[in-house]
Amino acid sequence: MKNRKSKYEIFREKIKIILYGTNTILGRMFDLVLLGLILLSVLLIMMETVEGINQKYHQQLIICEWIITVFFTIEYILRIISIQKPVKYVFSFYGIIDLLAVLPMYLSIFFPGASVLSVVRALRFFRLFKILHIPQISHQSAQLRDAIEASKEKILVFIYFVLISTVIIGTIMYLVEGKESGFTSIPMGIYWTIVTLTTVGYGDISPQSPLGQFIAALVMILGYGIIAVPTGIVTAEFAKSSLRSSSVNIKKTCKKCQSQVHFDNAKYCCECGTQLQIN
Amino acid sequence: MKNRKSKYEIFREKIKIILYGTNTILGRMFDLVLLGLILLSVLLIMMETVEGINQKYHQQLIICEWIITVFFTIEYILRIISIQKPVKYVFSFYGIIDLLAVLPMYLSIFFPGASVLSVVRALRFFRLFKILHIPQISHQSAQLRDAIEASKEKILVFIYFVLISTVIIGTIMYLVEGKESGFTSIPMGIYWTIVTLTTVGYGDISPQSPLGQFIAALVMILGYGIIAVPTGIVTAEFAKSSLRSSSVNIKKTCKKCQSQVHFDNAKYCCECGTQLQIN
Amino acid sequence: MKNRKSKYEIFREKIKIILYGTNTILGRMFDLVLLGLILLSVLLIMMETVEGINQKYHQQLIICEWIITVFFTIEYILRIISIQKPVKYVFSFYGIIDLLAVLPMYLSIFFPGASVLSVVRALRFFRLFKILHIPQISHQSAQLRDAIEASKEKILVFIYFVLISTVIIGTIMYLVEGKESGFTSIPMGIYWTIVTLTTVGYGDISPQSPLGQFIAALVMILGYGIIAVPTGIVTAEFAKSSLRSSSVNIKKTCKKCQSQVHFDNAKYCCECGTQLQIN
Amino acid sequence: MKNRKSKYEIFREKIKIILYGTNTILGRMFDLVLLGLILLSVLLIMMETVEGINQKYHQQLIICEWIITVFFTIEYILRIISIQKPVKYVFSFYGIIDLLAVLPMYLSIFFPGASVLSVVRALRFFRLFKILHIPQISHQSAQLRDAIEASKEKILVFIYFVLISTVIIGTIMYLVEGKESGFTSIPMGIYWTIVTLTTVGYGDISPQSPLGQFIAALVMILGYGIIAVPTGIVTAEFAKSSLRSSSVNIKKTCKKCQSQVHFDNAKYCCECGTQLQIN
Repeated sequence: MKNRKSKYEIFREKIKIILYGTNTILGRMFDLVLLGLILLSVLLIMMETVEGINQKYHQQLIICEWIITVFFTIEYILRIISIQKPVKYVFSFYGIIDLLAVLPMYLSIFFPGASVLSVVRALRFFRLFKILHIPQISHQSAQLRDAIEASKEKILVFIYFVLISTVIIGTIMYLVEGKESGFTSIPMGIYWTIVTLTTVGYGDISPQSPLGQFIAALVMILGYGIIAVPTGIVTAEFAKSSLRSSSVNIKKTCKKCQSQVHFDNAKYCCECGTQLQIN
Repeated sequence: MKNRKSKYEIFREKIKIILYGTNTILGRMFDLVLLGLILLSVLLIMMETVEGINQKYHQQLIICEWIITVFFTIEYILRIISIQKPVKYVFSFYGIIDLLAVLPMYLSIFFPGASVLSVVRALRFFRLFKILHIPQISHQSAQLRDAIEASKEKILVFIYFVLISTVIIGTIMYLVEGKESGFTSIPMGIYWTIVTLTTVGYGDISPQSPLGQFIAALVMILGYGIIAVPTGIVTAEFAKSSLRSSSVNIKKTCKKCQSQVHFDNAKYCCECGTQLQIN
Repeated sequence: MKNRKSKYEIFREKIKIILYGTNTILGRMFDLVLLGLILLSVLLIMMETVEGINQKYHQQLIICEWIITVFFTIEYILRIISIQKPVKYVFSFYGIIDLLAVLPMYLSIFFPGASVLSVVRALRFFRLFKILHIPQISHQSAQLRDAIEASKEKILVFIYFVLISTVIIGTIMYLVEGKESGFTSIPMGIYWTIVTLTTVGYGDISPQSPLGQFIAALVMILGYGIIAVPTGIVTAEFAKSSLRSSSVNIKKTCKKCQSQVHFDNAKYCCECGTQLQIN
Repeated sequence: MKNRKSKYEIFREKIKIILYGTNTILGRMFDLVLLGLILLSVLLIMMETVEGINQKYHQQLIICEWIITVFFTIEYILRIISIQKPVKYVFSFYGIIDLLAVLPMYLSIFFPGASVLSVVRALRFFRLFKILHIPQISHQSAQLRDAIEASKEKILVFIYFVLISTVIIGTIMYLVEGKESGFTSIPMGIYWTIVTLTTVGYGDISPQSPLGQFIAALVMILGYGIIAVPTGIVTAEFAKSSLRSSSVNIKKTCKKCQSQVHFDNAKYCCECGTQLQIN
């Protein structure tokens, strides 16, 4: 009995290395196959919504999707079984995504059309960075995250102000242009304002009256200046973080503590107080 | 008599704390209720302009708006009564907004349709920052304001040049394209130029002749380079203000040589080698 | 005879002070009147091209334009008469603009419709900075000009590469999409590529086939990254010039030569070599 | 025999100097003629696709193109003959481009219409920089390339995240809007999302339902913040590289203390007060 359990333990260990590990050849290969299947499955769901393709290959698409879904289900179950703390995994970001990736297909048995939601599988692509495990890239994405994180607050304050302006401008355009030009309501006016301020400019609604076009021109010039603000915020953060890592000059090395980071003009090591030699 | 007046005084004091204060639980709650009502009221006005919703719920919308307007009116009167210097409040930015927030509803009795102007209530949202009173956010918005303030002049000079170019380009397009393509007049040509230079690009008017399209392509490439300018201005200001506050920390002063510029984590003065005291 | 010439000299002197000077009240007032007339005249020309306005007020518009043109002509002649080196003025930037501002009206006697070209008067607005003579603004516009000047070469190299890509992408889209989608020729394809890469996006031509839309999506994402380049170039220049002017710390003043600009850690004045006192 | 071979050698030498060299007058002139012919030939191919021009001048266009093609073919052969390592040239970037520049015309004998592919000749323009040989410009383009190179990885990581979001948003819009609004499939929804996030905004597909427009507004505001990211990345790189080369000038070295960091215009060493020698 003990022996059998031990076999199960060994099996669990192996599965865990394959599913979670990225150091063994098998673990790596599994990860690549997984990524390939995610990509394939997302493409399949997309194709299913394209009329022409769906009419021709409906049967084949459904079969392929079910095969992948069953594979993902088995993978999900094995992940729960093989890990030490299954509850932690189930409620982690990846755990929830892994569940959401298989649920829609099973729901589609009862609610046809739910299978489209399987597209949420695309979120499993985030795993790529875990898999690739390239320190440089994870450093890059950390830097990206930090800069976005640091500028988040400022951008939120900025968007708050933009949204208030949006309500005012949208109402003015609704009053000036009226229903004939497509400004059928204030929310429509706000929609137009956002489309214009962000310089997207669909042209599905556009001012027709001279006064409306004059105001629109003012809004555009305003948007012109305004688009600079989030860019400025993010750029300043990037510049700060990248300058921080580069402006420090490694010119002088302290003989005692080997600390290399000093001001250009430092005469004493700021770590241990030893006099620095000019080289 | 004296007693009664004192009661009134106490009542005024209480009202003031609730309306203007943000430290008591009641004052905070009032502020949150106020913000909620502003949001609700702006949403109601918006809905009133949506055909479908207005036809169904016209009665209910009007009633809700009147209730909120009466509430805002009482609030406005109480604000005047409770404050020491009512005149100063009435003519302050918030005082004017608070008045403008209630006026349109009363005007709508005589001029139906004026109620739409109540949307100006959206400006009352600016109070949020006063209410939240989070030093970090008010610091962020101060930094935002400073950077925009500092770059205002340069951007105005820039827009002045852009507007002159706009007149010239608009006239050229009017002459080249003519009335069939929608360039019915010079102002229309200028409108098109602004739509194009800001990269909004509605497409309601677009050049049809080969020469017009060639000039349009030149204008776009020009706009491409030009959009960089306000961004550059604002970003440089942000970078300046954020670098200023971060790059060099004047936290530690050397007791011996009074040098103030040190790394965050410096332990010894880099000018004279004296040990720094952690403060 | 001598006396008469002297009178003429005095008259010339006076005219010169009024026309070119900005220090006397009369000179200042003249400049403001001039700017007002330029603005009025540009607006008049614009209005003339607006069908509705032109039909109603054609007579009045023409009369006003002629009055302003005659005024500008007299001004131009007086400018030539009063200045010492008339030839230099005539062939200077402002001299040419001043001539071009009046010519179209006289040409319109022989070629009706030439009056529209009077819009070139808008270029006279550049004089504003000369008139205002505010050192701060002329400093700002100088900084603007310097940053644009400094980034000009890099932007030209960049645009050269973009144009070559534009030819290639335009041809691919012409081959993929064909005439039904509006891609009637390679130049049309290039026009579409420029409209898309600059994110203007009129929508007058847009890809219809799945393959065309796929390539378009790639082009947009490319344009996404590419728009960052001129912005990055200009911003870096701005940041450089604004940091240069701000990073220099005016903390120490040399007792001997009163030079105020020193490095933070300077011990000797870099202008005269005197030892600086730590304050 | 030996004499004849020597003549051939001299001929080869001469051809090489003309084709590859840029120092002799003949070599320079050849390069300019070449650039002119490339420009002419690209323009001819473009014109051929313009209906009106092609119908009128088809014969002439074809003849001109053939003449240029024959010229390019001879040039290609001479380049192979004259160079020491012909294999290396044939498989180099320029060698492949030079071959691709002539192939389509010969293919067009068998496959009419293949001549359009000759547009690949546009890539020969890259040679301009080799020809101009202006150190300043090649420095500029090197700086451009470096900054783009340095930011490539971060931008790729960023685009990876954007593409995943694109799939999710595209699916949501497909579900919300449905086929009537043009969102006929998920790939179409993704196409719309890319058009919107990049602020191109054709307007060929745009949301019609209130919910769809609400989500679209959110996507635009998201895109607003997002467009700042690649700009921030590239700008930070530019700023870094341009600040590095400009901020501190190591032009003058103090003879006494060997301090190298001085202002451009410093006359005395700010470390020891010694007069600096102008070099």
